[in-house]
Amino acid sequence: MVAVKKIGKLEAEIITVGREVLTGKTLNTNSQWLSGKITALGGVVRRHITVDDRVQDIAKAVEESLNRGVDLIIVTGGLGPTFDDVTREGLAEAFKRKLRLNDSAVQMITQRYSQLRGLREEEVKLTGLQRRMAEMPEGSKPVMNPVGVAPGIVHECGSTLTVAMPGVPKEVEGIFESYVEPLIRRRVGGFQLYELNLLIAGVSESIIAPMVGEAMKNYAPIYIKSHPMGASLIKLDITCGGKDVKEVGDRVLSAASFILRRILQGFNDCSGTRVVNHPFNS
Amino acid sequence: MVAVKKIGKLEAEIITVGREVLTGKTLNTNSQWLSGKITALGGVVRRHITVDDRVQDIAKAVEESLNRGVDLIIVTGGLGPTFDDVTREGLAEAFKRKLRLNDSAVQMITQRYSQLRGLREEEVKLTGLQRRMAEMPEGSKPVMNPVGVAPGIVHECGSTLTVAMPGVPKEVEGIFESYVEPLIRRRVGGFQLYELNLLIAGVSESIIAPMVGEAMKNYAPIYIKSHPMGASLIKLDITCGGKDVKEVGDRVLSAASFILRRILQGFNDCSGTRVVNHPFNS
Repeated sequence: MVAVKKIGKLEAEIITVGREVLTGKTLNTNSQWLSGKITALGGVVRRHITVDDRVQDIAKAVEESLNRGVDLIIVTGGLGPTFDDVTREGLAEAFKRKLRLNDSAVQMITQRYSQLRGLREEEVKLTGLQRRMAEMPEGSKPVMNPVGVAPGIVHECGSTLTVAMPGVPKEVEGIFESYVEPLIRRRVGGFQLYELNLLIAGVSESIIAPMVGEAMKNYAPIYIKSHPMGASLIKLDITCGGKDVKEVGDRVLSAASFILRRILQGFNDCSGTRVVNHPFNS
Repeated sequence: MVAVKKIGKLEAEIITVGREVLTGKTLNTNSQWLSGKITALGGVVRRHITVDDRVQDIAKAVEESLNRGVDLIIVTGGLGPTFDDVTREGLAEAFKRKLRLNDSAVQMITQRYSQLRGLREEEVKLTGLQRRMAEMPEGSKPVMNPVGVAPGIVHECGSTLTVAMPGVPKEVEGIFESYVEPLIRRRVGGFQLYELNLLIAGVSESIIAPMVGEAMKNYAPIYIKSHPMGASLIKLDITCGGKDVKEVGDRVLSAASFILRRILQGFNDCSGTRVVNHPFNS
């Protein structure tokens, strides 16, 4: 269970384990996917961290996230059977617990191999390396991996819940959707995130900046992010989250109208400006 | 200048500043691009960190990287003119320096605007927000941005060099290639990274794992990373770096032959296995 400090708020950090990300071989799409999901559910992602496949590096990253007191830590990668899959050891060190063979995890792994190979469970014999996937810090619980074999690992430490999962994107998505998402939904509940995008051409970001600041003040708690998209093209993302769909939508639309009106009023200062489009995505 | 603790070795960390990455809106391609570049140049990337557009979060991330004593910290994002561009403030706090208007930075910004708008430099009048881009922690130096307007910021702190640059990918690439890359080349010098990829079908990762472990021991200092690519398909990346091209190449080829021979010898144990391809990429 996730303990949440403020009702309706859930702060999360995402730790990626894998040298392939640090060498630039692999693009960290897992962190993006998880962040999009958590944000849409009403959570707030505070940090992404990527570390090498080294026990000390993993342990330190997890300890630091625990010390920052976030509600949810998601760790991806390093739970497989190979020599450089050492997330289990890193977690044990961070939690100051011993690594032990977990019987339910052995059961889950056996069941997954039997399903994937079309064997009866009695026919599945796990090798030593395959049994490693069932080792977990004492006090942790395994979570079924609906896509691959290695189970996820869940651990409570104070008010922080840590969920570790293998790094294969389909497995991250499988474990998140089957286990983490329902858990966040129960805690945050009924949250809606609205976003409106304005693409504005012919004006520099520094001219739009004061209008954005004013709009954010007038229509708080909205958030407006401006993205320079190349020569004199600015994308504004206006977002607002909350439980009352109508109120949230109104707020976002009002802020957009405010900015558009200000641009039109200031036409002498920023001639050539035009709003390219403003699709409304709920 | 980058101070390097071990000759020929350069440890780096990459800090990304931007809420758009933490909400999943933007994929962190900058970190991947920078990591690929630094790795190919012979450096080692130890960590990626992404934080929100908040002064405290940026300051803490930079302080932590400084405390880990890496040689190079690259910070991307948050150097533009908008309200949420607060990397300057975060850096000042981390370096414990005051933020001051930097005259060379004002000069660079004026020069870039005059180039981009086809004006004479005397005709360029900077607004207050545009002048913000010239504010830097005392003791920092501006670095010309060959693509956009906001200059990069360079700061030495003990043996650590911090280089901050705006987050627009083309600007990251421009500042890295014009300023950081020559600097890393001078320090690491003549490094070559070799990589060979083996795609192996019909055998599970846990069967290949012991062979990989043995090959890494026998042909040290090579590194082999195995990537599960879906149902019984494993990609092995065998990499080795060094200054002697022939020695490095030999080592990688020997390790690959060792693994291939072991798979063929163990054919009874892992029948159905085949090596799909083994392109050699230098």
